[in-house]
Amino acid sequence: MIKANKKMNAAIIIIGNEILSGRTQDKNVAYLSKWLNDLGVRVEEVRIIPDLEKRIVSTVNKLRKKFKYIFTTGGIGPTHDDITARSIAKAFNVSYGYNLEAYKILEKYYTPVRFSEGRKKMAKMPDKASLIHNPSSGAPGFIIKNVYCLPGVPSILKSMTDSLTNKISGGKKILSKTVSVNTVESEIAKSLEKIQNKFKKVEIGSYPFFRLGKIGVSIVIRSTEKNRIDDCSKKIISFIKKKKIKIINRE
Amino acid sequence: MIKANKKMNAAIIIIGNEILSGRTQDKNVAYLSKWLNDLGVRVEEVRIIPDLEKRIVSTVNKLRKKFKYIFTTGGIGPTHDDITARSIAKAFNVSYGYNLEAYKILEKYYTPVRFSEGRKKMAKMPDKASLIHNPSSGAPGFIIKNVYCLPGVPSILKSMTDSLTNKISGGKKILSKTVSVNTVESEIAKSLEKIQNKFKKVEIGSYPFFRLGKIGVSIVIRSTEKNRIDDCSKKIISFIKKKKIKIINRE
Repeated sequence: MIKANKKMNAAIIIIGNEILSGRTQDKNVAYLSKWLNDLGVRVEEVRIIPDLEKRIVSTVNKLRKKFKYIFTTGGIGPTHDDITARSIAKAFNVSYGYNLEAYKILEKYYTPVRFSEGRKKMAKMPDKASLIHNPSSGAPGFIIKNVYCLPGVPSILKSMTDSLTNKISGGKKILSKTVSVNTVESEIAKSLEKIQNKFKKVEIGSYPFFRLGKIGVSIVIRSTEKNRIDDCSKKIISFIKKKKIKIINRE
Repeated sequence: MIKANKKMNAAIIIIGNEILSGRTQDKNVAYLSKWLNDLGVRVEEVRIIPDLEKRIVSTVNKLRKKFKYIFTTGGIGPTHDDITARSIAKAFNVSYGYNLEAYKILEKYYTPVRFSEGRKKMAKMPDKASLIHNPSSGAPGFIIKNVYCLPGVPSILKSMTDSLTNKISGGKKILSKTVSVNTVESEIAKSLEKIQNKFKKVEIGSYPFFRLGKIGVSIVIRSTEKNRIDDCSKKIISFIKKKKIKIINRE
Protein backbone atom coordinates (compact mmCIF):
# COMPACT_ATOMS: atom_id res chain seq x y z
CA MET A 1 0.00 0.00 0.00
CA ILE A 2 1.26 3.47 -0.90
CA LYS A 3 1.11 5.12 2.49
CA ALA A 4 -0.90 8.30 2.49
CA ASN A 5 0.56 11.37 4.08
CA LYS A 6 -0.87 11.21 7.59
CA LYS A 7 -2.92 14.28 6.84
CA MET A 8 -4.55 12.71 3.80
CA ASN A 9 -6.04 9.53 5.18
CA ALA A 10 -9.51 8.48 6.27
CA ALA A 11 -11.44 5.72 7.98
CA ILE A 12 -15.06 4.73 7.38
CA ILE A 13 -17.35 3.49 10.15
CA ILE A 14 -20.43 1.63 8.88
CA ILE A 15 -23.05 1.60 11.64
CA GLY A 16 -25.77 -0.98 11.22
CA ASN A 17 -26.99 -4.36 12.44
CA GLU A 18 -28.46 -4.97 8.99
CA ILE A 19 -24.97 -5.08 7.45
CA LEU A 20 -23.56 -7.34 10.19
CA SER A 21 -26.48 -9.77 9.88
CA GLY A 22 -25.92 -10.06 6.13
CA ARG A 23 -29.43 -8.78 5.40
CA THR A 24 -28.13 -5.74 3.53
CA GLN A 25 -25.17 -5.63 1.18
CA ASP A 26 -23.09 -2.54 1.98
CA LYS A 27 -22.35 -0.34 -1.02
CA ASN A 28 -21.17 2.79 0.73
CA VAL A 29 -17.58 1.67 1.33
CA ALA A 30 -16.88 1.28 -2.39
CA TYR A 31 -18.59 4.58 -3.24
CA LEU A 32 -16.94 6.65 -0.49
CA SER A 33 -13.51 5.14 -1.12
CA LYS A 34 -13.59 6.05 -4.80
CA TRP A 35 -14.92 9.53 -4.10
CA LEU A 36 -12.22 10.16 -1.48
CA ASN A 37 -9.54 8.70 -3.70
CA ASP A 38 -10.44 11.26 -6.38
CA LEU A 39 -9.97 13.96 -3.76
CA GLY A 40 -6.53 12.59 -2.88
CA VAL A 41 -7.64 11.03 0.41
CA ARG A 42 -6.83 7.40 1.03
CA VAL A 43 -9.18 5.16 3.03
CA GLU A 44 -6.93 3.07 5.28
CA GLU A 45 -9.48 1.31 7.46
CA VAL A 46 -13.16 0.40 7.57
CA ARG A 47 -15.06 -0.86 10.59
CA ILE A 48 -18.58 -2.22 10.53
CA ILE A 49 -20.18 -2.08 13.97
CA PRO A 50 -23.64 -2.62 15.47
CA ASP A 51 -26.18 0.05 16.50
CA LEU A 52 -24.89 0.10 20.07
CA GLU A 53 -24.01 3.38 21.75
CA LYS A 54 -20.99 2.02 23.59
CA ARG A 55 -19.50 0.59 20.40
CA ILE A 56 -20.15 3.75 18.39
CA VAL A 57 -18.58 5.95 21.08
CA SER A 58 -15.46 3.82 21.49
CA THR A 59 -14.92 3.26 17.75
CA VAL A 60 -15.32 6.95 16.88
CA ASN A 61 -13.03 8.02 19.70
CA LYS A 62 -10.33 5.54 18.74
CA LEU A 63 -10.34 6.31 15.04
CA ARG A 64 -10.81 10.07 15.05
CA LYS A 65 -7.41 10.46 16.68
CA LYS A 66 -5.68 8.17 14.19
CA PHE A 67 -7.10 9.43 10.89
CA LYS A 68 -7.59 12.86 9.38
CA TYR A 69 -11.14 12.19 8.26
CA ILE A 70 -13.77 9.87 9.69
CA PHE A 71 -16.94 9.12 7.76
CA THR A 72 -19.83 7.34 9.42
CA THR A 73 -22.82 5.95 7.56
CA GLY A 74 -26.17 4.92 8.98
CA GLY A 75 -28.29 5.54 12.04
CA ILE A 76 -29.39 9.15 11.43
CA GLY A 77 -33.06 8.52 10.61
CA PRO A 78 -36.13 9.01 12.81
CA THR A 79 -36.58 5.55 14.40
CA HIS A 80 -35.54 4.10 17.77
CA ASP A 81 -32.58 2.25 16.23
CA ASP A 82 -31.13 5.51 14.82
CA ILE A 83 -28.69 6.42 17.57
CA THR A 84 -25.67 7.75 15.67
CA ALA A 85 -26.16 11.48 16.41
CA ARG A 86 -26.75 10.91 20.13
CA SER A 87 -23.77 8.54 20.36
CA ILE A 88 -21.46 10.94 18.57
CA ALA A 89 -22.47 13.75 20.92
CA LYS A 90 -21.44 11.42 23.74
CA ALA A 91 -18.14 10.59 22.03
CA PHE A 92 -17.29 14.30 21.89
CA ASN A 93 -18.78 14.92 25.32
CA VAL A 94 -21.09 17.67 24.03
CA SER A 95 -24.82 18.06 24.47
CA TYR A 96 -27.35 16.54 22.07
CA GLY A 97 -30.36 18.58 21.06
CA TYR A 98 -32.12 20.47 18.29
CA ASN A 99 -29.91 22.08 15.70
CA LEU A 100 -31.89 25.19 14.77
CA GLU A 101 -30.73 25.28 11.18
CA ALA A 102 -31.65 21.62 10.69
CA TYR A 103 -34.97 22.23 12.44
CA LYS A 104 -35.84 25.03 10.03
CA ILE A 105 -34.81 23.02 6.97
CA LEU A 106 -36.93 20.06 8.04
CA GLU A 107 -39.91 22.19 9.06
CA LYS A 108 -39.89 23.80 5.63
CA TYR A 109 -39.37 20.47 3.87
CA TYR A 110 -42.29 18.76 5.61
CA THR A 111 -44.43 21.91 6.20
CA PRO A 112 -45.15 22.77 9.87
CA VAL A 113 -48.34 20.64 9.93
CA ARG A 114 -46.57 17.45 8.88
CA PHE A 115 -43.44 18.08 10.97
CA SER A 116 -44.16 15.26 13.42
CA GLU A 117 -42.22 14.24 16.50
CA GLY A 118 -40.47 11.44 14.60
CA ARG A 119 -39.32 13.88 11.96
CA LYS A 120 -38.19 16.39 14.58
CA LYS A 121 -35.75 13.79 15.89
CA MET A 122 -33.78 14.16 12.67
CA ALA A 123 -33.01 17.78 13.68
CA LYS A 124 -31.30 16.59 16.87
CA MET A 125 -27.52 16.65 16.68
CA PRO A 126 -24.39 17.13 18.74
CA ASP A 127 -23.98 20.76 19.86
CA LYS A 128 -22.13 22.97 17.33
CA ALA A 129 -22.31 20.39 14.54
CA SER A 130 -22.38 21.91 11.09
CA LEU A 131 -24.77 20.53 8.50
CA ILE A 132 -24.33 18.44 5.38
CA HIS A 133 -27.02 19.41 2.89
CA ASN A 134 -29.38 16.64 1.72
CA PRO A 135 -30.95 17.34 -1.67
CA SER A 136 -32.80 13.98 -1.75
CA SER A 137 -34.85 13.74 1.39
CA GLY A 138 -34.37 16.84 3.52
CA ALA A 139 -32.73 15.40 6.61
CA PRO A 140 -29.20 16.78 6.81
CA GLY A 141 -26.07 14.94 7.85
CA PHE A 142 -23.60 16.70 10.09
CA ILE A 143 -19.93 17.37 10.74
CA ILE A 144 -18.31 17.64 14.14
CA LYS A 145 -14.57 18.29 14.09
CA ASN A 146 -13.14 15.65 11.72
CA VAL A 147 -16.17 13.33 11.84
CA TYR A 148 -18.60 13.42 8.91
CA CYS A 149 -21.96 11.68 9.50
CA LEU A 150 -23.91 10.48 6.52
CA PRO A 151 -27.05 8.34 6.10
CA GLY A 152 -27.01 4.63 5.30
CA VAL A 153 -29.24 4.65 2.20
CA PRO A 154 -26.73 4.67 -0.70
CA SER A 155 -28.74 6.88 -3.08
CA ILE A 156 -29.21 9.56 -0.42
CA LEU A 157 -25.59 9.34 0.70
CA LYS A 158 -24.41 9.81 -2.89
CA SER A 159 -26.53 12.92 -3.32
CA MET A 160 -24.87 14.48 -0.26
CA THR A 161 -21.18 14.09 -1.04
CA ASP A 162 -21.13 16.84 -3.70
CA SER A 163 -21.58 19.53 -1.08
CA LEU A 164 -18.62 18.12 0.87
CA THR A 165 -16.10 18.12 -1.94
CA ASN A 166 -14.80 21.61 -1.18
CA LYS A 167 -14.51 20.79 2.54
CA ILE A 168 -12.06 17.93 2.03
CA SER A 169 -8.48 18.93 1.44
CA GLY A 170 -6.61 15.96 0.11
CA GLY A 171 -3.24 15.29 -1.41
CA LYS A 172 -2.32 14.12 -4.84
CA LYS A 173 -4.91 11.87 -6.43
CA ILE A 174 -3.89 8.23 -6.58
CA LEU A 175 -3.85 7.16 -10.21
CA SER A 176 -4.14 3.60 -11.43
CA LYS A 177 -3.76 1.49 -14.53
CA THR A 178 -5.16 -2.01 -14.93
CA VAL A 179 -3.76 -4.63 -17.27
CA SER A 180 -5.99 -7.69 -17.51
CA VAL A 181 -4.34 -10.81 -18.81
CA ASN A 182 -5.47 -14.29 -19.75
CA THR A 183 -3.49 -16.40 -17.30
CA VAL A 184 -3.44 -17.56 -13.69
CA GLU A 185 -1.62 -15.73 -10.90
CA SER A 186 1.03 -18.37 -10.32
CA GLU A 187 2.31 -17.93 -13.92
CA ILE A 188 3.16 -14.30 -13.30
CA ALA A 189 3.84 -14.21 -9.55
CA LYS A 190 7.63 -14.32 -9.73
CA SER A 191 8.02 -11.69 -12.47
CA LEU A 192 5.53 -9.38 -10.76
CA GLU A 193 7.39 -9.65 -7.49
CA LYS A 194 10.66 -8.72 -9.19
CA ILE A 195 9.05 -5.65 -10.72
CA GLN A 196 7.42 -4.69 -7.41
CA ASN A 197 10.86 -4.86 -5.76
CA LYS A 198 12.24 -2.51 -8.40
CA PHE A 199 9.34 -0.05 -8.22
CA LYS A 200 9.09 0.56 -4.49
CA LYS A 201 6.91 3.64 -4.82
CA VAL A 202 4.34 1.94 -7.01
CA GLU A 203 1.77 -0.47 -5.61
CA ILE A 204 1.15 -3.53 -7.76
CA GLY A 205 -1.95 -5.58 -6.96
CA SER A 206 -2.84 -8.88 -8.56
CA TYR A 207 -6.50 -9.97 -8.63
CA PRO A 208 -7.71 -13.20 -10.22
CA PHE A 209 -11.12 -13.06 -11.90
CA PHE A 210 -13.65 -15.47 -13.35
CA ARG A 211 -15.84 -13.71 -15.88
CA LEU A 212 -18.20 -15.33 -18.35
CA GLY A 213 -16.47 -18.63 -17.75
CA LYS A 214 -13.04 -17.18 -18.54
CA ILE A 215 -10.28 -16.92 -16.03
CA GLY A 216 -7.72 -14.17 -15.87
CA VAL A 217 -5.78 -11.81 -13.66
CA SER A 218 -6.14 -8.05 -13.35
CA ILE A 219 -2.83 -6.41 -12.55
CA VAL A 220 -3.45 -3.03 -10.97
CA ILE A 221 -0.65 -0.47 -10.81
CA ARG A 222 -1.17 2.48 -8.47
CA SER A 223 0.82 5.59 -7.71
CA THR A 224 0.35 9.32 -7.40
CA GLU A 225 2.86 9.80 -10.27
CA LYS A 226 1.73 9.03 -13.78
CA ASN A 227 5.27 8.52 -15.11
CA ARG A 228 5.98 5.86 -12.48
CA ILE A 229 2.84 3.99 -13.47
CA ASP A 230 3.83 4.22 -17.15
CA ASP A 231 7.38 2.96 -16.50
CA CYS A 232 6.11 0.11 -14.37
CA SER A 233 3.36 -0.93 -16.77
CA LYS A 234 5.89 -1.01 -19.65
CA LYS A 235 7.96 -3.54 -17.69
CA ILE A 236 4.87 -5.60 -16.91
CA ILE A 237 3.60 -5.62 -20.49
CA SER A 238 7.05 -6.55 -21.71
CA PHE A 239 7.26 -9.72 -19.58
CA ILE A 240 3.64 -10.60 -20.32
CA LYS A 241 4.43 -10.49 -24.06
CA LYS A 242 7.63 -12.46 -23.54
CA LYS A 243 5.62 -15.17 -21.82
CA LYS A 244 3.16 -15.15 -24.77
CA ILE A 245 0.24 -14.40 -22.43
CA LYS A 246 -2.75 -12.69 -24.05
CA ILE A 247 -3.58 -9.18 -22.85
CA ILE A 248 -7.37 -8.92 -22.53
CA ASN A 249 -7.51 -5.21 -21.95
CA ARG A 250 -5.80 -2.17 -20.46
CA GLU A 251 -7.59 0.65 -18.75
CA MET B 1 -28.61 -5.79 18.91
CA ILE B 2 -29.42 -9.09 20.59
CA LYS B 3 -26.11 -9.77 22.30
CA ALA B 4 -24.68 -13.13 21.41
CA ASN B 5 -23.42 -15.34 24.15
CA LYS B 6 -19.72 -14.46 24.28
CA LYS B 7 -18.92 -17.91 23.04
CA MET B 8 -21.10 -17.55 19.97
CA ASN B 9 -19.75 -14.41 18.35
CA ALA B 10 -17.38 -13.72 15.48
CA ALA B 11 -15.48 -10.96 13.74
CA ILE B 12 -14.51 -10.82 10.07
CA ILE B 13 -11.27 -9.27 8.84
CA ILE B 14 -11.27 -8.40 5.15
CA ILE B 15 -7.68 -8.04 3.98
CA GLY B 16 -7.21 -6.18 0.71
CA ASN B 17 -6.18 -2.86 -0.76
CA GLU B 18 -8.63 -3.46 -3.61
CA ILE B 19 -11.58 -3.19 -1.22
CA LEU B 20 -10.22 -0.06 0.49
CA SER B 21 -9.58 1.65 -2.84
CA GLY B 22 -13.15 1.00 -3.96
CA ARG B 23 -11.94 -1.00 -6.95
CA THR B 24 -13.66 -4.17 -5.75
CA GLN B 25 -17.06 -4.42 -4.09
CA ASP B 26 -16.78 -6.78 -1.10
CA LYS B 27 -19.36 -9.54 -1.07
CA ASN B 28 -17.84 -11.84 1.53
CA VAL B 29 -19.16 -10.00 4.58
CA ALA B 30 -22.79 -10.53 3.58
CA TYR B 31 -22.20 -14.18 2.66
CA LEU B 32 -20.20 -15.12 5.77
CA SER B 33 -22.58 -13.26 8.09
CA LYS B 34 -25.61 -15.15 6.79
CA TRP B 35 -23.79 -18.47 6.85
CA LEU B 36 -22.62 -17.90 10.44
CA ASN B 37 -26.05 -16.67 11.48
CA ASP B 38 -27.54 -19.97 10.31
CA LEU B 39 -25.01 -21.74 12.53
CA GLY B 40 -26.04 -19.61 15.50
CA VAL B 41 -22.93 -17.42 15.43
CA ARG B 42 -23.37 -13.66 15.39
CA VAL B 43 -20.93 -11.40 13.55
CA GLU B 44 -20.35 -8.43 15.85
CA GLU B 45 -17.57 -6.60 14.04
CA VAL B 46 -15.95 -6.35 10.63
CA ARG B 47 -12.68 -4.64 9.84
CA ILE B 48 -11.33 -3.97 6.37
CA ILE B 49 -7.58 -3.44 6.42
CA PRO B 50 -4.77 -3.09 3.85
CA ASP B 51 -2.26 -5.77 2.77
CA LEU B 52 0.27 -4.62 5.35
CA GLU B 53 1.90 -7.12 7.70
CA LYS B 54 1.90 -4.82 10.70
CA ARG B 55 -1.81 -4.09 10.34
CA ILE B 56 -2.73 -7.74 9.82
CA VAL B 57 -0.73 -8.82 12.88
CA SER B 58 -2.16 -6.16 15.18
CA THR B 59 -5.77 -6.57 14.00
CA VAL B 60 -5.72 -10.37 14.28
CA ASN B 61 -4.12 -10.21 17.71
CA LYS B 62 -6.62 -7.68 19.00
CA LEU B 63 -9.72 -9.41 17.71
CA ARG B 64 -8.85 -13.06 18.33
CA LYS B 65 -8.90 -12.40 22.06
CA LYS B 66 -12.26 -10.62 21.93
CA PHE B 67 -14.30 -12.96 19.71
CA LYS B 68 -14.82 -16.69 19.62
CA TYR B 69 -14.27 -16.98 15.87
CA ILE B 70 -12.21 -14.84 13.52
CA PHE B 71 -12.57 -15.19 9.76
CA THR B 72 -10.10 -13.54 7.44
CA THR B 73 -10.60 -13.23 3.70
CA GLY B 74 -7.99 -12.44 1.06
CA GLY B 75 -4.26 -12.55 0.63
CA ILE B 76 -3.67 -16.31 0.41
CA GLY B 77 -2.82 -16.55 -3.29
CA PRO B 78 0.59 -16.93 -4.94
CA THR B 79 1.60 -13.32 -5.64
CA HIS B 80 3.82 -10.84 -3.76
CA ASP B 81 0.79 -9.02 -2.30
CA ASP B 82 -0.53 -12.22 -0.72
CA ILE B 83 0.91 -11.92 2.76
CA THR B 84 -1.90 -13.19 4.99
CA ALA B 85 -0.41 -16.61 5.88
CA ARG B 86 3.00 -15.15 6.71
CA SER B 87 1.45 -12.34 8.76
CA ILE B 88 -0.78 -14.71 10.71
CA ALA B 89 2.23 -16.90 11.55
CA LYS B 90 3.81 -13.74 12.94
CA ALA B 91 0.67 -12.86 14.91
CA PHE B 92 0.79 -16.28 16.60
CA ASN B 93 4.57 -16.18 16.86
CA VAL B 94 4.97 -19.51 15.09
CA SER B 95 7.14 -20.41 12.13
CA TYR B 96 5.93 -20.04 8.52
CA GLY B 97 6.78 -22.76 6.04
CA TYR B 98 5.50 -25.60 3.90
CA ASN B 99 2.49 -27.47 5.23
CA LEU B 100 3.14 -31.00 3.96
CA GLU B 101 -0.52 -31.88 3.54
CA ALA B 102 -1.16 -28.70 1.54
CA TYR B 103 2.00 -29.34 -0.48
CA LYS B 104 0.79 -32.80 -1.46
CA ILE B 105 -2.71 -31.59 -2.35
CA LEU B 106 -1.33 -28.85 -4.57
CA GLU B 107 1.31 -31.06 -6.17
CA LYS B 108 -1.41 -33.54 -7.10
CA TYR B 109 -3.77 -30.78 -8.26
CA TYR B 110 -1.20 -29.17 -10.57
CA THR B 111 0.84 -32.35 -11.34
CA PRO B 112 4.52 -32.30 -10.26
CA VAL B 113 5.67 -30.79 -13.59
CA ARG B 114 3.38 -27.77 -13.32
CA PHE B 115 3.89 -27.25 -9.59
CA SER B 116 5.89 -24.03 -9.99
CA GLU B 117 7.50 -21.90 -7.32
CA GLY B 118 4.56 -19.48 -7.32
CA ARG B 119 2.15 -22.33 -6.74
CA LYS B 120 4.33 -23.79 -4.02
CA LYS B 121 3.93 -20.56 -2.05
CA MET B 122 0.26 -21.47 -1.54
CA ALA B 123 1.41 -24.48 0.53
CA LYS B 124 3.22 -22.19 2.98
CA MET B 125 1.33 -21.66 6.22
CA PRO B 126 1.77 -21.02 9.92
CA ASP B 127 3.18 -24.07 11.73
CA LYS B 128 0.52 -26.55 12.91
CA ALA B 129 -2.29 -24.90 10.91
CA SER B 130 -5.01 -27.32 9.87
CA LEU B 131 -6.40 -27.11 6.36
CA ILE B 132 -9.68 -25.91 4.91
CA HIS B 133 -10.45 -27.97 1.82
CA ASN B 134 -10.87 -26.06 -1.45
CA PRO B 135 -12.99 -27.92 -4.02
CA SER B 136 -12.79 -25.07 -6.58
CA SER B 137 -9.15 -24.32 -7.16
CA GLY B 138 -6.99 -26.60 -5.05
CA ALA B 139 -5.26 -24.13 -2.75
CA PRO B 140 -6.48 -24.77 0.80
CA GLY B 141 -7.33 -22.21 3.44
CA PHE B 142 -6.21 -22.85 6.98
CA ILE B 143 -7.20 -22.70 10.62
CA ILE B 144 -4.93 -21.75 13.48
CA LYS B 145 -6.58 -21.73 16.91
CA ASN B 146 -9.75 -19.64 16.47
CA VAL B 147 -8.64 -17.92 13.24
CA TYR B 148 -10.08 -19.24 9.96
CA CYS B 149 -8.32 -17.99 6.82
CA LEU B 150 -10.23 -18.00 3.55
CA PRO B 151 -9.52 -16.62 0.08
CA GLY B 152 -10.88 -13.32 -1.23
CA VAL B 153 -12.56 -14.56 -4.42
CA PRO B 154 -16.23 -14.96 -3.39
CA SER B 155 -17.01 -18.03 -5.52
CA ILE B 156 -14.03 -19.92 -4.12
CA LEU B 157 -14.74 -18.80 -0.56
CA LYS B 158 -18.33 -20.03 -0.86
CA SER B 159 -17.21 -23.45 -2.04
CA MET B 160 -15.03 -23.80 1.07
CA THR B 161 -17.47 -23.03 3.87
CA ASP B 162 -19.34 -26.35 3.60
CA SER B 163 -16.39 -28.26 5.01
CA LEU B 164 -16.29 -25.86 7.97
CA THR B 165 -19.90 -26.20 9.05
CA ASN B 166 -19.24 -29.08 11.43
CA LYS B 167 -16.27 -27.26 12.97
CA ILE B 168 -18.30 -24.26 14.13
CA SER B 169 -20.30 -24.77 17.28
CA GLY B 170 -22.82 -21.99 17.59
CA GLY B 171 -25.82 -21.23 19.72
CA LYS B 172 -29.43 -20.86 18.78
CA LYS B 173 -30.01 -19.60 15.29
CA ILE B 174 -31.22 -16.02 15.11
CA LEU B 175 -34.59 -15.99 13.40
CA SER B 176 -36.14 -13.01 11.68
CA LYS B 177 -39.37 -11.81 10.18
CA THR B 178 -39.68 -8.84 7.85
CA VAL B 179 -42.82 -6.75 7.41
CA SER B 180 -42.52 -4.31 4.53
CA VAL B 181 -44.93 -1.41 4.59
CA ASN B 182 -45.84 1.42 2.28
CA THR B 183 -44.98 4.43 4.41
CA VAL B 184 -42.04 6.53 5.59
CA GLU B 185 -40.11 5.88 8.80
CA SER B 186 -41.26 8.97 10.62
CA GLU B 187 -44.91 7.80 10.42
CA ILE B 188 -44.15 4.66 12.41
CA ALA B 189 -41.18 5.73 14.53
CA LYS B 190 -43.07 6.43 17.75
CA SER B 191 -45.20 3.27 17.70
CA LEU B 192 -42.19 1.12 16.84
CA GLU B 193 -40.21 2.60 19.71
CA LYS B 194 -43.02 1.80 22.15
CA ILE B 195 -43.11 -1.80 20.95
CA GLN B 196 -39.30 -2.08 21.13
CA ASN B 197 -39.47 -0.88 24.74
CA LYS B 198 -42.00 -3.60 25.55
CA PHE B 199 -40.11 -6.37 23.76
CA LYS B 200 -36.62 -5.95 25.20
CA LYS B 201 -35.39 -9.34 24.00
CA VAL B 202 -36.40 -8.78 20.41
CA GLU B 203 -34.44 -6.54 18.06
CA ILE B 204 -36.55 -4.35 15.81
CA GLY B 205 -34.79 -2.72 12.89
CA SER B 206 -36.34 -0.18 10.56
CA TYR B 207 -34.92 0.20 7.05
CA PRO B 208 -36.29 2.61 4.44
CA PHE B 209 -36.19 1.44 0.83
CA PHE B 210 -36.72 2.90 -2.61
CA ARG B 211 -37.64 0.18 -5.06
CA LEU B 212 -39.02 0.61 -8.54
CA GLY B 213 -39.80 4.20 -7.71
CA LYS B 214 -41.82 3.20 -4.64
CA ILE B 215 -40.85 4.12 -1.13
CA GLY B 216 -41.41 1.98 1.90
CA VAL B 217 -39.97 0.68 5.13
CA SER B 218 -38.88 -2.85 5.98
CA ILE B 219 -39.41 -3.62 9.63
CA VAL B 220 -37.17 -6.49 10.64
CA ILE B 221 -37.88 -8.39 13.86
CA ARG B 222 -35.07 -10.63 15.16
CA SER B 223 -34.81 -13.04 18.06
CA THR B 224 -33.69 -16.57 18.81
CA GLU B 225 -37.26 -17.36 19.98
CA LYS B 226 -39.94 -17.79 17.36
CA ASN B 227 -42.80 -17.06 19.74
CA ARG B 228 -41.28 -13.72 20.72
CA ILE B 229 -41.05 -12.75 17.06
CA ASP B 230 -44.67 -13.81 16.52
CA ASP B 231 -45.94 -11.82 19.52
CA CYS B 232 -43.96 -8.76 18.49
CA SER B 233 -45.00 -8.91 14.84
CA LYS B 234 -48.68 -9.18 15.87
CA LYS B 235 -48.36 -5.90 17.76
CA ILE B 236 -46.63 -4.28 14.82
CA ILE B 237 -49.16 -5.47 12.26
CA SER B 238 -51.97 -4.31 14.52
CA PHE B 239 -50.75 -0.69 14.71
CA ILE B 240 -49.89 -0.69 11.02
CA LYS B 241 -53.49 -1.68 10.22
CA LYS B 242 -54.86 0.87 12.69
CA LYS B 243 -52.88 3.57 10.87
CA LYS B 244 -54.31 2.29 7.54
CA ILE B 245 -50.82 1.75 6.16
CA LYS B 246 -50.58 -0.81 3.37
CA ILE B 247 -48.55 -3.94 4.08
CA ILE B 248 -46.50 -4.74 0.97
CA ASN B 249 -45.30 -8.14 2.10
CA ARG B 250 -44.26 -10.31 5.01
CA GLU B 251 -41.43 -12.81 4.88
